[in-house]
Amino acid sequence: MLRPIEPQSGAAAASALRVDLINAQYDLLRAGFPVVIVVAGNDRLGMVELVQLMHEWMDARYIQTHVFEAPAGEEVEHPFMWRYWRALPPRGIIGLYVAAWPLNLIGDRALGLISRKEFDRRLDQISRFERMLTLEGTLVIKFWVQTPRELIRERLRRAKKHPQSNWRVEPVDRDLHRILKNAQRDIHRLLACTDTDHAPWHVLDGSDERARNRVFVDVLATTLKRRLSTTTPPPPQEPTDTGDGSDALGGIDLSPAADPADNRRRLDEARSRVAAITRRARKRGVASVLVFEGWDAAGKGSAIRRITHSMAVRDYRVVAVAAPSEEERARPYLWRFWRQLPRAGQMLILDRSWYGRVLVERVEGLARPDEWQRAYDEINDFEAQLTQSGVLLLKFWLHIDRDEQLRRFHQRANTPYKKYKLTEEDLRNRERWDDYVAAANEMIARTGTAHAPWHVLAANDKRQAQLEVVETVRRGLQRALRSP
Amino acid sequence: MLRPIEPQSGAAAASALRVDLINAQYDLLRAGFPVVIVVAGNDRLGMVELVQLMHEWMDARYIQTHVFEAPAGEEVEHPFMWRYWRALPPRGIIGLYVAAWPLNLIGDRALGLISRKEFDRRLDQISRFERMLTLEGTLVIKFWVQTPRELIRERLRRAKKHPQSNWRVEPVDRDLHRILKNAQRDIHRLLACTDTDHAPWHVLDGSDERARNRVFVDVLATTLKRRLSTTTPPPPQEPTDTGDGSDALGGIDLSPAADPADNRRRLDEARSRVAAITRRARKRGVASVLVFEGWDAAGKGSAIRRITHSMAVRDYRVVAVAAPSEEERARPYLWRFWRQLPRAGQMLILDRSWYGRVLVERVEGLARPDEWQRAYDEINDFEAQLTQSGVLLLKFWLHIDRDEQLRRFHQRANTPYKKYKLTEEDLRNRERWDDYVAAANEMIARTGTAHAPWHVLAANDKRQAQLEVVETVRRGLQRALRSP
Repeated sequence: MLRPIEPQSGAAAASALRVDLINAQYDLLRAGFPVVIVVAGNDRLGMVELVQLMHEWMDARYIQTHVFEAPAGEEVEHPFMWRYWRALPPRGIIGLYVAAWPLNLIGDRALGLISRKEFDRRLDQISRFERMLTLEGTLVIKFWVQTPRELIRERLRRAKKHPQSNWRVEPVDRDLHRILKNAQRDIHRLLACTDTDHAPWHVLDGSDERARNRVFVDVLATTLKRRLSTTTPPPPQEPTDTGDGSDALGGIDLSPAADPADNRRRLDEARSRVAAITRRARKRGVASVLVFEGWDAAGKGSAIRRITHSMAVRDYRVVAVAAPSEEERARPYLWRFWRQLPRAGQMLILDRSWYGRVLVERVEGLARPDEWQRAYDEINDFEAQLTQSGVLLLKFWLHIDRDEQLRRFHQRANTPYKKYKLTEEDLRNRERWDDYVAAANEMIARTGTAHAPWHVLAANDKRQAQLEVVETVRRGLQRALRSP
Repeated sequence: MLRPIEPQSGAAAASALRVDLINAQYDLLRAGFPVVIVVAGNDRLGMVELVQLMHEWMDARYIQTHVFEAPAGEEVEHPFMWRYWRALPPRGIIGLYVAAWPLNLIGDRALGLISRKEFDRRLDQISRFERMLTLEGTLVIKFWVQTPRELIRERLRRAKKHPQSNWRVEPVDRDLHRILKNAQRDIHRLLACTDTDHAPWHVLDGSDERARNRVFVDVLATTLKRRLSTTTPPPPQEPTDTGDGSDALGGIDLSPAADPADNRRRLDEARSRVAAITRRARKRGVASVLVFEGWDAAGKGSAIRRITHSMAVRDYRVVAVAAPSEEERARPYLWRFWRQLPRAGQMLILDRSWYGRVLVERVEGLARPDEWQRAYDEINDFEAQLTQSGVLLLKFWLHIDRDEQLRRFHQRANTPYKKYKLTEEDLRNRERWDDYVAAANEMIARTGTAHAPWHVLAANDKRQAQLEVVETVRRGLQRALRSP
């Protein structure tokens, strides 16, 4: 069914290539990095042939193939890049992305579903996504099959005639052919803007099918082998300036509230208002993500309970973020948060979050400096995608001082609740207080963006902090409900 | 919002219960078994209150709550129990199943969606599911909230009047109330048939809300604590008779085919017929699962490629089953196969499968005798659910003899394909040939059922075996396409 590769030049060359390719795949299984191969183009039949060729020549058991057609169901409820994140392969495995972001983007633009400005914004997102993948250790190989339009039409006609091949022609072929009629400028722009050193485009001329297949396999085998023979990891970035000396936490007034009784009454009122508005948010399909960060014993748990108390249980999910699982460790670090994102109308409440990267992982040396340093941009990028897709994102830092923490630790030690029993970790973290202050200050300075500002709350007075959390959530949901 | 528990008897008793409950949950986190709590009943408001109470009194971050309403989307495309399997919590975590299988079953029956016979069949499935969960180490706690109908109506009316509680009343309440009008007999039957020692029903009288809450929390705390204090695992079953001496493999004629040339021609023909029929299966939404088992080097991989060669890549997925991941090890062993099940129109091809439990795990001592012995029934049950839901299931054992395996190992050692390089494991498995023969014979005898028979194929002649695989798949798909 597949065209042979250069039968003229002898079966020996093809056979050698094939052995190279499959051996590279088996080395990959042990090498421990993931591979993402993108196959897109203006020639769907050509793309399909390349994919079939990979399944034929390589071991399909270790290839996860995803054909990305128009988004449907849950995919529509999430940011543009969600389904590509979800499909990321673990280490050792090839994720074969067919059509995927390049062709989906071109299609959306050609159909007039997105503006020129949105097109450029997505190009930028894609570039950053591919950069992040590379820096996280994924090998990205991209192919664009470009075939003259007359030739595509001719081949579709020919394929349709033969019972051996007519099943390959689908309605989507005619549609795609029509849609891409005037897309040449956008295709050029896509290829130019996302052609980088770490994830270059390999444009395959589809005119000669044999040559196309040969170049495809050759690039695959060569790129895999080159990366497999590289023993050193990609060079870390230049250390960036760690912080601008900003001191968000130093400026917090931790003195107790003037009138505690008044706060109690206000909290009750605010809670019943939040209860009502969360139900409207569910009906209107507003998704939200609440991030809680802050010191141990700062009161994250009880603040969260203030929110959920009057919510219907099926409308929210509370997740405690701890060490990643094996499946999560095998992928880029933001993957485990992408996979948790809420559907329309749902609220995800995170007790600790992706900010672990620039807090505990930085302070405890669990992430390399180049890793946590680039995380600020990656996180800003992630959050921008969330908010642009209509998710309400609210980030809280609950702040207490060292004395207050010690007082609460003592209190805990005396409660009958085992969950509050102190661990050695609690005390160890406490010893590194100043390092955490520096990390938190830099985090707040670098990830407090216009679309996702930090709400840094004085939490020595618990009720005061809870009131502010509840009020902030209420205002946020109200804003989200007002927006179109 | 929640009714206090026995305020008359003093806050001290309630507080002690609460401390007990939360401490049990924290002990559970470290104890390493999962908990499934089912909350169902004829009183939805009551169920919701109990769920809210759990979220309030326990740590919601370690409770995974699932409200199972009418199945939708992907759920409809899978067996009845699929969504309950998917939601199973890992060790240390509570899966809170609201409505779930008991109420879904009663609802389906009351709506006339299933016959009396199907009702009984599902009762049986449910019993076996709960038994399997228990044997795999999950603690199952089931509550049924039963409230007099007049009282439910009265409470709905009252709740609707107050702005503090009217949001709790949903259209589903009226529907459920109406639907369950004549369901009392079915409810009795459900409670009677699925009330077992390992997963007894706790029927809560919803007349007195405070008493209901008190009993609920008391049962929860007591059951959790009792299980936490049990240091010994559940007693293993009596060893069953291992095999009836049946010798399916001994009866295989491994002599070469009469006319190899003829087989080549027939294979080509069969392949193009399969190619056509898989496309019809996709269009008609027929899902299929192909299981390949057999000796190392028996030719599983190449038989699979004969099937997939002419299929569209997006129509199938080939999965090599190896050691389970961390997330998989934290759940019952069939979980990882349930989560892989194909959607409508898709084919899942497994290179090794759940039969690892009674083959490699048995022979290598990776599963305890009671575990692999009960696996036969569990597997038969699983496969029955698959086929009853319309999935085409085909199971192949590719059989070669010891000499042929040695010949192929030698051949492999001399190919340039690294994937065929021999490992120590290959040779070790070979040494245990007789143990594997005994295990395979017993497996074939005990899991070769009417709905899912084994296709034991003589594979010394590779092409002959491939021809039979392709023909069996073709006939199976044809049969599935003919059935309504």
